[in-house]
Amino acid sequence: MRTIDKQNRMPLYSQLMDIILDMIEEGDLNADDQLPSERELCEKYDVSRSTVRQAIQELEKEGYIYRLHGKGTFISPKRFKQDLLKFYSFTEEMKKIGKVPTSKVLDFNIIECNEKLSRKMKLKVGDSLYIFTRLRLADNEPMMLETSYVPCHRFPGLTKKQLEQMPMYDIFSKLYNVSITSAEETFQSVLTREEEAYILMYTNGFPSTMIERTTYENEDVIEYTKGIARGDRFKYSILLKK
Amino acid sequence: MRTIDKQNRMPLYSQLMDIILDMIEEGDLNADDQLPSERELCEKYDVSRSTVRQAIQELEKEGYIYRLHGKGTFISPKRFKQDLLKFYSFTEEMKKIGKVPTSKVLDFNIIECNEKLSRKMKLKVGDSLYIFTRLRLADNEPMMLETSYVPCHRFPGLTKKQLEQMPMYDIFSKLYNVSITSAEETFQSVLTREEEAYILMYTNGFPSTMIERTTYENEDVIEYTKGIARGDRFKYSILLKK
Repeated sequence: MRTIDKQNRMPLYSQLMDIILDMIEEGDLNADDQLPSERELCEKYDVSRSTVRQAIQELEKEGYIYRLHGKGTFISPKRFKQDLLKFYSFTEEMKKIGKVPTSKVLDFNIIECNEKLSRKMKLKVGDSLYIFTRLRLADNEPMMLETSYVPCHRFPGLTKKQLEQMPMYDIFSKLYNVSITSAEETFQSVLTREEEAYILMYTNGFPSTMIERTTYENEDVIEYTKGIARGDRFKYSILLKK
Repeated sequence: MRTIDKQNRMPLYSQLMDIILDMIEEGDLNADDQLPSERELCEKYDVSRSTVRQAIQELEKEGYIYRLHGKGTFISPKRFKQDLLKFYSFTEEMKKIGKVPTSKVLDFNIIECNEKLSRKMKLKVGDSLYIFTRLRLADNEPMMLETSYVPCHRFPGLTKKQLEQMPMYDIFSKLYNVSITSAEETFQSVLTREEEAYILMYTNGFPSTMIERTTYENEDVIEYTKGIARGDRFKYSILLKK
């Protein structure tokens, strides 16, 4: 059994976190298993209650464990690992891991393109844009919140109902004959804002990834999306070959 | 001038954040410019002091602004955008943007490979590994903290001094004739831990990106590195083409 080294420059709570993280990684603790109680952890690793509490708190913030009121603390499901080298769609990726993807369209409006969007989307100021916000769920659990901007002239007659019934990229390709030629994505680590946390059923101040995506059909931007993905649900990977 | 919409479902502080973020993006506010005072922001946008404070606090946590005691609040330098599709090295990337990269080797030891590392690095339990932690700085400002594991048998005689004097990948290629054939990187949004924040001169609980990298020479793992990159200094991008 790994022990805590009280001479180590690493704080005790941080060492305890790593011990628990290793148990998760090794498969000694699996998704939805109950974590040993605070008292058991204190005794087993010979540390104080406050050390155990701090370790548990941090593990919860980092998304490795979750609490159920009156029931205890449990191991979170593993993060979904998204391969960045593919043109992925949330819908397709969730299906692949056996989850049922759904989307709720929270907002759907038409706005005029402002200066900032005109630069991002290579449009003229004043051009019409659809703006819609979708909550993406997997097995009814909120995973991401995405706000998309799409030029009206390329998608005449697009409706909220279509977006509720069909994956966006299917609408693009099947109803509007769009073929995507390239996409740029940018990733940033951020803290979840209050209103995002509320919709994502997550916690204000917990980590999320902000993803901006610009999708092209040849030289034309057909989509600019800014999304917040729950940090406890996703990680991103890339394999480079020479 | 953009105004705050009190009917909007978005909280006022969040709207004010977006207004300030837009001013940064538009170039109305540039790196190291002073942010208008709380009082000026209250008056200009007709919101309460507590709304302004919350917006400023959140912008600070997200790394867009920084405070200097007794001097005020200033706009942060733009995040460095790392292209993920290249075999990048911190040293080379920082040089390209005109910054002087340096590394401090905080720890350098030889350990025995445990089960977890044996799986990650395709080594036998008990094999010898170098483990070293490097603080990566740009113009003397802490940017990343990286702990690397490297197999001893491939790099006999590697020293702390070499790592202090020469970029790691230069040591690999020039002194040990390694040619990297592939690398896998994984990204997760996390909160900065206490001891990481201390070394990175950053703040406990602010966002960071945890990066795990495994580098290969043909089938052999020559490096496994786990790093923490300050969330206010980096973003990551990828351009996909069909």
